[in-house]
Amino acid sequence: MYFLGIDLGGTSIKGGIVDRKGEILAQGQVPTRAEDGAEAVLAQIEDLAKELKATAGIKDSQLQGAGIGIPGSVDMEEGLVRLAPNLHWRNFPLKEKIEKVLRLPVFLDNDAHVAALGEMWQGAGRNYRDILMITIGTGIGSAVILGGEVHRGFFGYGAELGHVKVEPEGPLCECGGRGCLETLASATAIVHQAKRELGRGRPSLLQDKEALEAKDVLLAAGQGDELALEVVNRAAGYLGVALANAVFLLGPAAVIIGGGVAQAGEVLLKPLKKRFEEALGPWQIKPLPLLLARLGNRAGFIGAAYLPLSFFKKAGYV
Amino acid sequence: MYFLGIDLGGTSIKGGIVDRKGEILAQGQVPTRAEDGAEAVLAQIEDLAKELKATAGIKDSQLQGAGIGIPGSVDMEEGLVRLAPNLHWRNFPLKEKIEKVLRLPVFLDNDAHVAALGEMWQGAGRNYRDILMITIGTGIGSAVILGGEVHRGFFGYGAELGHVKVEPEGPLCECGGRGCLETLASATAIVHQAKRELGRGRPSLLQDKEALEAKDVLLAAGQGDELALEVVNRAAGYLGVALANAVFLLGPAAVIIGGGVAQAGEVLLKPLKKRFEEALGPWQIKPLPLLLARLGNRAGFIGAAYLPLSFFKKAGYV
Repeated sequence: MYFLGIDLGGTSIKGGIVDRKGEILAQGQVPTRAEDGAEAVLAQIEDLAKELKATAGIKDSQLQGAGIGIPGSVDMEEGLVRLAPNLHWRNFPLKEKIEKVLRLPVFLDNDAHVAALGEMWQGAGRNYRDILMITIGTGIGSAVILGGEVHRGFFGYGAELGHVKVEPEGPLCECGGRGCLETLASATAIVHQAKRELGRGRPSLLQDKEALEAKDVLLAAGQGDELALEVVNRAAGYLGVALANAVFLLGPAAVIIGGGVAQAGEVLLKPLKKRFEEALGPWQIKPLPLLLARLGNRAGFIGAAYLPLSFFKKAGYV
Repeated sequence: MYFLGIDLGGTSIKGGIVDRKGEILAQGQVPTRAEDGAEAVLAQIEDLAKELKATAGIKDSQLQGAGIGIPGSVDMEEGLVRLAPNLHWRNFPLKEKIEKVLRLPVFLDNDAHVAALGEMWQGAGRNYRDILMITIGTGIGSAVILGGEVHRGFFGYGAELGHVKVEPEGPLCECGGRGCLETLASATAIVHQAKRELGRGRPSLLQDKEALEAKDVLLAAGQGDELALEVVNRAAGYLGVALANAVFLLGPAAVIIGGGVAQAGEVLLKPLKKRFEEALGPWQIKPLPLLLARLGNRAGFIGAAYLPLSFFKKAGYV
């Protein structure tokens, strides 16, 4: 009994074939080709599925279902991708279309949700059923899992920790809000703030760097660069307080931190943890684990493969 | 089939006898006498229960159980009041003691939790099963109900919206934290801020007021007093953003606002709602009801009476 997991990103599609215990039989990736239209994307998924089946050496009949993580909002009942800006999709009937192509039952969910499910199933969250996950990359994604299930809430899109307002008069976000966490602590925000400080003529290892990226700032901070340290500490402070505030409301049993920025390690995590602990203070009556995501960019397809598995489990087929 | 609900406060004990449909047969209140020790408090509860049974005209055998809302943290499994500073109780075995006195099964829960259950059962939250409730009084209490059940979280005490950090460098809270919502938007905070502004010699209707209370500030704001308006708007802004941030994480189907400060009406609610709507912005893809609590200070005992009822329902006895 095997499951196909697909992590559909704006630039690449990652996928894998996973068994019911979470063992990966095959994994691979292809370009998304979103700019060539939806049919091209469907064809890319089909190609990737074929390649993965060949690598895994399994027959079509051994594949029970597929899951797809979507970079946007999903109407799970209708099988629609409501809005996926990176793919230029709006109300796209992906489930119907891709089921015809793959000849499998297909389950859709948001990419932050499937990444969190992946970490719960096979990664840092293996021992937990109540998880808050934050993914710090270009933007800030988040997911809440309660009792082993994604918490979707009244609006259906789950948690949006990236749009919590941490500086009510702060910078304008693409969502139209002011001072969203994403505008102050994402990779984009770190680059933006470093450039602003460099623009003031402050000395820094980053001075002559072209096409500055967040990893450059994190690296320079690790080397003790004052400007970079200031920028990283500021972002870490916002993250630590926002996570503590989320814990005050949600009371998860573990917090998982994922995404490229988190992979930078202690230079960001140390000040983040410090502010997190300070903000929780005496309310942390027992230690709450703050964990690094373990699956890296495989979390998406592993969690996507978990969608059909958990459906079949609930239905009593597995 | 009747239930006794007790709202055990630091200065008074409110109680009522309620039927399974939530009809109140009798209600009353006695002083707590916390300063005379735990035995005195137990005797007060006993007296109140007798008085209520007499008023309701019911026999002991018709009373199926009791619930008590506690101003502090409760270990529900052990039936202990872990910590109730207003009552000077620590690890007090209330369940065991009061069951002997009342000769009834007794269920304990935190006072914010029972108030939210009361509003869900009989008040503003009747049509909802996923509720965020905030109670703005001397302090700021909160409760989260998901799927009709109090969400207790990893630490067991549920949500603590009053200790969410809204100004990381803000005033010191009694909990040891800085910039807790409670220090910036409770009745206490409103009085404190009005006094500080008055101390600067600013003209105001509040100038010659002795023993200033939050309701005086809210009243003056309603009369257009500039200083009072500034103080109230500031508190309302913090509340609106904190509630919106909570919605980003929890996605409740309704937000209920209770407590003395909320009863002031539009002078606080209008700016609060404005900041709430602004902070949610385009993420509020369908209207999220922001409701005023309806049960006033009866929410506690009504919700407390719901504790045995819901237990018996789950056990299949009702």
